[in-house]
Amino acid sequence: MPEVEHQNATALSDDELRTLDAHWRAANYLAAGQIYLMSNPLLTEPLKPEHIKPRLLGHWGTSPGLNLVYTHLNRVISARGLDALCVWGPGHGGPSVLAGSWLDGSYSETYPDVSRDVQGMERLFRQFSFPGGVPSHVAPEVPGSIHEGGELGYSLAHAYGAAFDNPNLLVACVIGDGEAETGPLAASWHSDKFLDPVHDGAVLPILHLNGYKIANPTVLSRLPEAELDQLLRGYGHEPLHVTGDDPAAVHRAMARAFDEALDRIALMQRSAREGGVAERVHWPVIVLRTPKGWTGPAEVDGLPVEGTWRSHQVPLAGVRENPEHLRQLEAWLRSYRPEELFHPDGRPVADVLACVPAGARRLGSTPHANGGLLVRDLPIRSLDSFAVPVEKPGTTLHEPTRVLGGLLEQVMKDTRARRDFRVVGPDETASNRLQAVFDASGKAWQAGTLPVDEHLDRHGRVMEILSEHLCQGWLEGYLLTGRHGLFSCYEAFVHIVDSMVNQHIKWLKTSRELPWRAPLASLNYLLTSHVWRQDHNGFSHQDPGFVDHVLNKSPDVVRVYLPPDANTLLSVADHALRSRDYVNVIVAGKQPCFDWLSMDAARAHCARGAGIWDWAGTENGDEPDVVLACAGDVPTQEVLAAAQLLRHHLPHLAVRVVNVVDMTRLLPREEHPHGMSEFEYDGLFTTDKPVIFAYHGYPWLIHRLAYRRTGHKNLHVRGYKESGTTTTPFDMVVRNDLDRYRLVMDVIDRVPGLGVRAAAVRQQMADARTRHHAWIREHGTDLPEVADWTWNA
Amino acid sequence: MPEVEHQNATALSDDELRTLDAHWRAANYLAAGQIYLMSNPLLTEPLKPEHIKPRLLGHWGTSPGLNLVYTHLNRVISARGLDALCVWGPGHGGPSVLAGSWLDGSYSETYPDVSRDVQGMERLFRQFSFPGGVPSHVAPEVPGSIHEGGELGYSLAHAYGAAFDNPNLLVACVIGDGEAETGPLAASWHSDKFLDPVHDGAVLPILHLNGYKIANPTVLSRLPEAELDQLLRGYGHEPLHVTGDDPAAVHRAMARAFDEALDRIALMQRSAREGGVAERVHWPVIVLRTPKGWTGPAEVDGLPVEGTWRSHQVPLAGVRENPEHLRQLEAWLRSYRPEELFHPDGRPVADVLACVPAGARRLGSTPHANGGLLVRDLPIRSLDSFAVPVEKPGTTLHEPTRVLGGLLEQVMKDTRARRDFRVVGPDETASNRLQAVFDASGKAWQAGTLPVDEHLDRHGRVMEILSEHLCQGWLEGYLLTGRHGLFSCYEAFVHIVDSMVNQHIKWLKTSRELPWRAPLASLNYLLTSHVWRQDHNGFSHQDPGFVDHVLNKSPDVVRVYLPPDANTLLSVADHALRSRDYVNVIVAGKQPCFDWLSMDAARAHCARGAGIWDWAGTENGDEPDVVLACAGDVPTQEVLAAAQLLRHHLPHLAVRVVNVVDMTRLLPREEHPHGMSEFEYDGLFTTDKPVIFAYHGYPWLIHRLAYRRTGHKNLHVRGYKESGTTTTPFDMVVRNDLDRYRLVMDVIDRVPGLGVRAAAVRQQMADARTRHHAWIREHGTDLPEVADWTWNA
Repeated sequence: MPEVEHQNATALSDDELRTLDAHWRAANYLAAGQIYLMSNPLLTEPLKPEHIKPRLLGHWGTSPGLNLVYTHLNRVISARGLDALCVWGPGHGGPSVLAGSWLDGSYSETYPDVSRDVQGMERLFRQFSFPGGVPSHVAPEVPGSIHEGGELGYSLAHAYGAAFDNPNLLVACVIGDGEAETGPLAASWHSDKFLDPVHDGAVLPILHLNGYKIANPTVLSRLPEAELDQLLRGYGHEPLHVTGDDPAAVHRAMARAFDEALDRIALMQRSAREGGVAERVHWPVIVLRTPKGWTGPAEVDGLPVEGTWRSHQVPLAGVRENPEHLRQLEAWLRSYRPEELFHPDGRPVADVLACVPAGARRLGSTPHANGGLLVRDLPIRSLDSFAVPVEKPGTTLHEPTRVLGGLLEQVMKDTRARRDFRVVGPDETASNRLQAVFDASGKAWQAGTLPVDEHLDRHGRVMEILSEHLCQGWLEGYLLTGRHGLFSCYEAFVHIVDSMVNQHIKWLKTSRELPWRAPLASLNYLLTSHVWRQDHNGFSHQDPGFVDHVLNKSPDVVRVYLPPDANTLLSVADHALRSRDYVNVIVAGKQPCFDWLSMDAARAHCARGAGIWDWAGTENGDEPDVVLACAGDVPTQEVLAAAQLLRHHLPHLAVRVVNVVDMTRLLPREEHPHGMSEFEYDGLFTTDKPVIFAYHGYPWLIHRLAYRRTGHKNLHVRGYKESGTTTTPFDMVVRNDLDRYRLVMDVIDRVPGLGVRAAAVRQQMADARTRHHAWIREHGTDLPEVADWTWNA
Repeated sequence: MPEVEHQNATALSDDELRTLDAHWRAANYLAAGQIYLMSNPLLTEPLKPEHIKPRLLGHWGTSPGLNLVYTHLNRVISARGLDALCVWGPGHGGPSVLAGSWLDGSYSETYPDVSRDVQGMERLFRQFSFPGGVPSHVAPEVPGSIHEGGELGYSLAHAYGAAFDNPNLLVACVIGDGEAETGPLAASWHSDKFLDPVHDGAVLPILHLNGYKIANPTVLSRLPEAELDQLLRGYGHEPLHVTGDDPAAVHRAMARAFDEALDRIALMQRSAREGGVAERVHWPVIVLRTPKGWTGPAEVDGLPVEGTWRSHQVPLAGVRENPEHLRQLEAWLRSYRPEELFHPDGRPVADVLACVPAGARRLGSTPHANGGLLVRDLPIRSLDSFAVPVEKPGTTLHEPTRVLGGLLEQVMKDTRARRDFRVVGPDETASNRLQAVFDASGKAWQAGTLPVDEHLDRHGRVMEILSEHLCQGWLEGYLLTGRHGLFSCYEAFVHIVDSMVNQHIKWLKTSRELPWRAPLASLNYLLTSHVWRQDHNGFSHQDPGFVDHVLNKSPDVVRVYLPPDANTLLSVADHALRSRDYVNVIVAGKQPCFDWLSMDAARAHCARGAGIWDWAGTENGDEPDVVLACAGDVPTQEVLAAAQLLRHHLPHLAVRVVNVVDMTRLLPREEHPHGMSEFEYDGLFTTDKPVIFAYHGYPWLIHRLAYRRTGHKNLHVRGYKESGTTTTPFDMVVRNDLDRYRLVMDVIDRVPGLGVRAAAVRQQMADARTRHHAWIREHGTDLPEVADWTWNA
């Protein structure tokens, strides 16, 4: 490992110390002001109860530490001309990041009514955590932010995502010691084995040990320093420790640590980029140990507050009613000497602004935190180059995700120079049949290799780690900074990131309401290895409920697609990869599946989102007797097999087959932008005929989407009802009453007046199910008539 | 730290080595046999295609390593007379644990038809991963298992949960290097800061580095050993490394490592228990580095398999069709020399069984893995001791969770000697107002302390760490081994464990179908700090969708309660704590809430699960004109305020107020054991009157539950529709159209023929909403008429 040259690691001059401290004090003053003040922002008059907000909401405890990082990042950005972004893990410290971006001018440029003067300061204070104002967290409303940190755990993964393929970017990441206890954060430390020093930027984690969470000490802060040091070295980092509560000493130590870290980073990058050094890099990490609520009230009502969990939110809670609290607040605020920090008109004095960088280098103004400004359309070639030929429906078989692999391979190739597209997955890219992408890019990997390894590549853009949290976090960070990607995941285990996608959807929903935030590439899920084909793994791997989960969220953001075959999957994926500001959930199989639609037919079908498959039904121009609807590859196959049985056994029955690709089409138009009008819906499903709907997931979802429809009372849904185990594909559908025989029985049970012939057919179907049960127990395989079934036979 | 005495760390005798290896070879043979063979189990004739299963499903790669652990655990259990349980993280290695429990006789005792002879062996082989047989994972069907490991990440947390309050238990835990990449597992390493050497048992993690996941190397296996060693020491452990591929050498090293680990554990426990040593213990961890698919085919079709990812599932895939594969399989199976391991009648020879312990000490027979055998009813006193007095509804306020805290405190006290009850939460016990429990037990904590700390206790039974995953994992392990507990969590962030609760529900569902598995204490969630009261935190903290999530799962297992006040919360919690084999989700507020029901009334109301609140409505014995229904504390308050407004403004309107506590009551009886009959439902909600339903969560859930009801078309639901931010409580309900004024407008809009008077009232309501908007923008607080509202005023 090369030696670090301490080229810039000189001591702070007194001048620098003074100006840095001025910036920090100003930020602390502004943070506290936001929590407490409605007026009198510069304390030009003695503090009175009426200056205080009626409801005190916000988090002070983390703010001084975040402010310190903001101040010192300003310094090194200015001194070194860095492009930098900071991910603020303790995002509830909104007052701090708001203060920083108000001081650097970004806030006022984004929100001109909150000007960098006394009027603006009053607005800044008043709006904070105030109805109709701004949230108390580092939410999308905050310039320079890509990370709210409301739900803790994802800061470091976001930081890595932002750094991938951004070779000139420094991504600082403040990790609270509370957040460090979460699983996703604990796993994120190993992201350093995936960061390419050549094509990726640097991540500088700043582990902020302020010692406490809401009401408890933190684990990492209570380890002996040597043990913590071992832990961080075990994660692959070189720790730099900054500890103290004397501001001047901490400023000096922090400046030294930043300089040493950045020198080291610069050297490592140079060695890798110019020197061709291919060893794994042991990147620096800064361990910052300062008191929680530092510089706030030391004691309140006789209890210690500064340096304890009691400073987590609002250290002085009774300010309006309690004169002693009011007095303490005033003393606290005045301790920052605001008169030295701001001109009488509220503008920050030159000392305060001395460290602030200019233009787009400001943390509040970096375009990387507003990725939509940077995102470019993906180069996607015509789907005809990847499509499978379909002359007649149901005669050929393809693995849909393998076909999609061809498209992804080409996108990967066509972005080789741009490097703005990644595929992530929890060790499942090949298992999910997307291995064609390896012909265009290897798998990112910086750890050791052996000759037997395949496709590992220090510069790869396929990301595989056995952590759905990291896949999601990395991809979110990548998208939020203006790039593209796809997350392929076993369907059941995408629930691991339920809460993460919640937060991302919330972020997108709010961002869409902010005109200054430009639209991002969508977050695209490919859910495969799905509930119906878990032959190896059984019940634990069977869960189709992610669709239900996301459909609870903002309809402006959420899209759900269930393409029934290879070409429809291509069409849907193409649409998803071109889209902006959505979360697209695509559920598709990896097992051989009949090809139903040619590429042109697939395009047309997907554009409609739902439609009648004339060729599969037996209508004659009149209204059908029954509608067989389907959504998902396996249900589609069973519905077509049922339609074929009906055609054979009850040829006079007019059966309509409807396939639904876009699930939100079922919603009323008022509830979702893709929702069908009543006219459209009734045209497809009729208002009075029985509809037997074979759905991929939990059947009640269809009712939840369609309950307002006129024909809802005739809607009968079959789907997965949590009856699973390790078994054959057809046995799975039989167990859940989704099989062709059951569907035919459902039709016969629901269409009135079918007579004796139908009763006999019904018995045949019931017999077939019995035959299935006997056969499978004996042979362990599916009935030959099912295994060998094709549509045109 | 005390010196370890190597009292038992002697070298293996040749005899021991021979018998241990015999056991291991037998287990390997049985594991491979399960994956491949339908008949000819002892290879008494040459292997033919018809002996091979038609579908080869299973995971070989991890099995030899798991077998090694099983063998050596047998040895130390026998030698030391240990009570031990093993958590098998790589649970997809089902063949291995099935082999182990068949060899130790537990399997045949549990399933007599799978006897420990040649017939039983053939059944063992055939049933594996075979339709109608047993799953391929260490599922509930496997004796001795508390952990399936299908979804990876939770083994170590389960192990700690099992060890808490089991002072005489050794919990070994095999962690695969794939699983080790997950977030929850990465966080679990810090569980050692919560394990009390006095009252808890020992956890012995065995990190099994076989180098590969499905298709990739693993991160930890590719770290330099020194770096991995630092990492594990940073986690607080003393690593013992066992590396090799020569069976005899590995047996010797493994025996030494186990002896050293167990000596160390015994010493540490003695020091803490007898010597009163109160330092944090640095427990041993075994790092076992052996090839993936060890002893399996070295090469297949010219590609390396043993020691690579290619051995993950079925190393020889074409055995039925490909004579070379068949030959290789036969050679592989015969390499274990089955004729030396089994008598001709299939019984294992004495050498194989030499290491196997007896009776309940066998890993397949430990009662700790069938916790229902050990669980005792919790001592819960009469609720009258904790209830709040309610003379008239809606005149007093209490924080419901604080009242519940009194009950929990008493249970905590009354289990002080038994130590079979724990409360877990992600740093939120006090935030969720349950701090009364600290009067009965401190918070478990083994890391450093400071004088300022409160309630930290080396022997505490309240568990707080900022990781929902650990809270859930610990509690699951605790319950699965026969104890009780409660998980209190912010409502929004319980989604973090969506996937974990999925797996636990699946486990319970399957367990209930196994007569030999005795019922466990339920997994009880208290979800609070809920969507309507996130004044500090805003949108990121607002999500009521966990209820939707669990209601997708097996109705036999899932229960959901929304108590509207303090006494109903007591009643529901009492029921939940007494129940067995459920997942109970209780959603309740922590903010001051009106008391509506006396304890007796609460008991009666909760027993019904849903009922008419006569005192709140204006019925006169006839059918009402409208039903105002509510579920949840905030909706209940708004509905009662709306009822009051209606009583005042439209006194002749007959309003019925229905409150729902048990959400599954709304389901049809056929769909859920708690579902109401049609008769009951119609009696409550009418078949033809408008029903305005104010629901705590996403409104469509109510439709999903009630869509089959006769009166469904008249059901109009208000709830949370993802419109949130940092704001006041009343503004939240206004934003989501759940407020009293909106509800009155809904009634007027839906009850026909109300005339001019009603139109004027409707306008008044709309005006009140406008007034609200103006007031809140100006004052940042709620309208005085709302803030000061009480029912009886």
